[in-house]
Amino acid sequence: MYYETFRQMKKLLGQLDGWLQSAATLAQTKSFDPNVFLTLRLAPDQFTFARQVQTTCDTAKLAASRLTGKDAPAQPDSEQTLEELRARIRSVIAYLDTVTAEDFAAAATRSITQPRWEGKTMTGADYFLEHAVPNFFFHLTHAYAILRHNGVGIGKRDYLGPLTLR
Amino acid sequence: MYYETFRQMKKLLGQLDGWLQSAATLAQTKSFDPNVFLTLRLAPDQFTFARQVQTTCDTAKLAASRLTGKDAPAQPDSEQTLEELRARIRSVIAYLDTVTAEDFAAAATRSITQPRWEGKTMTGADYFLEHAVPNFFFHLTHAYAILRHNGVGIGKRDYLGPLTLR
Repeated sequence: MYYETFRQMKKLLGQLDGWLQSAATLAQTKSFDPNVFLTLRLAPDQFTFARQVQTTCDTAKLAASRLTGKDAPAQPDSEQTLEELRARIRSVIAYLDTVTAEDFAAAATRSITQPRWEGKTMTGADYFLEHAVPNFFFHLTHAYAILRHNGVGIGKRDYLGPLTLR
Repeated sequence: MYYETFRQMKKLLGQLDGWLQSAATLAQTKSFDPNVFLTLRLAPDQFTFARQVQTTCDTAKLAASRLTGKDAPAQPDSEQTLEELRARIRSVIAYLDTVTAEDFAAAATRSITQPRWEGKTMTGADYFLEHAVPNFFFHLTHAYAILRHNGVGIGKRDYLGPLTLR
């Protein structure tokens, strides 16, 4: 289910890209600078909108890279505009498109670590379930919530995207 | 991975229960009615905090029930206090404890439907990945975001809970 989950992350990154378009549309309609969205946040000690988007992107990208061993593009957090954030989202979507189901064959038993874990590790299976998936949705949903809180006209369907109904 | 994901949902519901305790503590410290949290929301046309919690609970409970065929307790949305919301969370945790890995044996191929789908269906696999998991995290994170926006002292560690570091 690793591969299938990353396909869903890819789909949801596409939805996120659309929310940024809706934010730009609101700014145009109300004649304000669309890039003010980048510094908005829900609490003074929470991430800004820009950092929520960057972290959503990084969580998907780095998790896919760590679980497959396939190098991912490095991306400095230097975006200053909605358009630059959208380019970042699309670059992660393009990276996820290079990862195949076979690439995840050894994912569950890989040893995963991060600098902040100070030498400790997680198995790929634990990392995926306990860390990567919850963090991806945490930052994705905060990006959504910041936009909704500030009047952007998006709804639950824009979050979920199309469903495979039969 | 169905079973493992629902174990994670159970863990995160336990974290959610703790956030409500933190909300009650803030209310006590600042001498306001803790139950005002139930009606807070981030946008006038989004769910209230109470409904975010109820929907988080229902998403986990109904998805487990639909994917296993095991009946889940019916729960009217009648909670009026933080304590009643906490009892609801705990009742869903108790329900999830009754579901075993074997119960999900046929989950992927079950035919899932909801009244709002007007007769259409999803396979269990699609429903799980496209609907249940994203919705669970959407409402869980909105509950978190509403509390953070209103000054409750919780952080990312309270969201993720303990990790299986080695």
